[in-house]
Amino acid sequence: MPSGKRPPHAFSLAGEVRDYECDLQGIVNNAVYQNYLEHARHVFLKQSGIVFSDLAKSGTHLVIVRAELDYKAPLRSGDAFEIGLSIRKLSPVRIEFTQDIFLLPSRKLLLASRFECAAMDASGRPVFPRVLDRLFAV
Amino acid sequence: MPSGKRPPHAFSLAGEVRDYECDLQGIVNNAVYQNYLEHARHVFLKQSGIVFSDLAKSGTHLVIVRAELDYKAPLRSGDAFEIGLSIRKLSPVRIEFTQDIFLLPSRKLLLASRFECAAMDASGRPVFPRVLDRLFAV
Amino acid sequence: MPSGKRPPHAFSLAGEVRDYECDLQGIVNNAVYQNYLEHARHVFLKQSGIVFSDLAKSGTHLVIVRAELDYKAPLRSGDAFEIGLSIRKLSPVRIEFTQDIFLLPSRKLLLASRFECAAMDASGRPVFPRVLDRLFAV
Amino acid sequence: MPSGKRPPHAFSLAGEVRDYECDLQGIVNNAVYQNYLEHARHVFLKQSGIVFSDLAKSGTHLVIVRAELDYKAPLRSGDAFEIGLSIRKLSPVRIEFTQDIFLLPSRKLLLASRFECAAMDASGRPVFPRVLDRLFAV
Repeated sequence: MPSGKRPPHAFSLAGEVRDYECDLQGIVNNAVYQNYLEHARHVFLKQSGIVFSDLAKSGTHLVIVRAELDYKAPLRSGDAFEIGLSIRKLSPVRIEFTQDIFLLPSRKLLLASRFECAAMDASGRPVFPRVLDRLFAV
Repeated sequence: MPSGKRPPHAFSLAGEVRDYECDLQGIVNNAVYQNYLEHARHVFLKQSGIVFSDLAKSGTHLVIVRAELDYKAPLRSGDAFEIGLSIRKLSPVRIEFTQDIFLLPSRKLLLASRFECAAMDASGRPVFPRVLDRLFAV
Repeated sequence: MPSGKRPPHAFSLAGEVRDYECDLQGIVNNAVYQNYLEHARHVFLKQSGIVFSDLAKSGTHLVIVRAELDYKAPLRSGDAFEIGLSIRKLSPVRIEFTQDIFLLPSRKLLLASRFECAAMDASGRPVFPRVLDRLFAV
Repeated sequence: MPSGKRPPHAFSLAGEVRDYECDLQGIVNNAVYQNYLEHARHVFLKQSGIVFSDLAKSGTHLVIVRAELDYKAPLRSGDAFEIGLSIRKLSPVRIEFTQDIFLLPSRKLLLASRFECAAMDASGRPVFPRVLDRLFAV
């Protein structure tokens, strides 16, 4: 993941830590960030008119093929945060999401991540239904 | 839930606490017991030849309609436990699971629970496919 | 749990289903409702000036000793909901939370629950620090 | 992550999918693999005489600073799997875990991952207590 300045994000979503998401170290468990980031991606999709569960029912599965997460500082009970999200096309059938989590109100960067995502049909064959082009509209 | 002696269980499953299941109090989070108990029910079903996910795909949904859980003492990181399970028919379309969780090796009772369960089709209408009778075979 | 009309709630919290909370039946998993309900209780506590994690750090543990949940209809991907919460003192050292989950915008009742809660110190002895009286202020 | 042949693993742990770990796509949710992998790391630590929760209580926090996961094929309801784990020291204060998940019994590779891990004290300062050297014993 490139260090240095993070690009401005196309989309952002605010959230706050729920106590059940914290583990015995008293911090948000590593796996839970993937929950947050998935949720932010699905809200972004929905805002573009693409409902993830409908897409799955229609036979197109958006799947993560690679995830990279840099954990810089932990979220704790009571923390508020913002998830920034950017998207670009890596290939005709592959999408990249860049997602950062910032503490609020300081906007300190807590986590930087990127996800490579592919669309496939039920048999695992790559597809890229036209509806997904909406994600890249200016 | 009646206190006093618990009946001997028809089925049991051993498990152990995973650290991510513990919350900031350092004990297994209340909700996680429902994960354990669901898993034990599904393993019990499978042992009777009923695969929960296949049943769902075939259009029969087994759903919990009522849950009662008495939390007596907590599970902690590193603990091993056993889940005992009994089943009986409450009505032609309703099943009761009685499930207890014991600490190992002491067999101290940590949680007592009962679940009322109904089978329904995709439209929510009560059904009771014959395959479910296997659960009550002697 | 008494059927019929539910009392008006002292506190309410809105939320919405996240896709990772849905299971292979395409509905919110039974255990996840306990996450929602715990979160609503902790937000209610916080609004009364009681921070759950601070309370735990100070050596007072609020624990659920009994949970009853009536699942009436499922939440699904994309659903918005409201959690209503009421509280009363069952005994000098025991609290009862009554919590209902309503679908939005219809306010259809999806889940009715009650939780008995005790406060104890690190050794498991019942305590009831005065700060908890704030929860019952008019 | 280098493709090609995966090194033989120093440690392995078997597991099986629990239905509540599957999401509305009918496959194990992406975040759940991090649960599996954390659990395998903690069992490995324990086998070397290091109890993660005790280490945390003693003031040494082992934290993930970077995670890379290549999702190659999904786990589904009913699947059994094996997690292979290798460890090496990246620097005096940084550990790398390489972890792969294989489907059983075919041993098809489903997920390849690496985690960079640092040890720090409560104030976030890097430490490397001697007890951690046990992890690298031949």
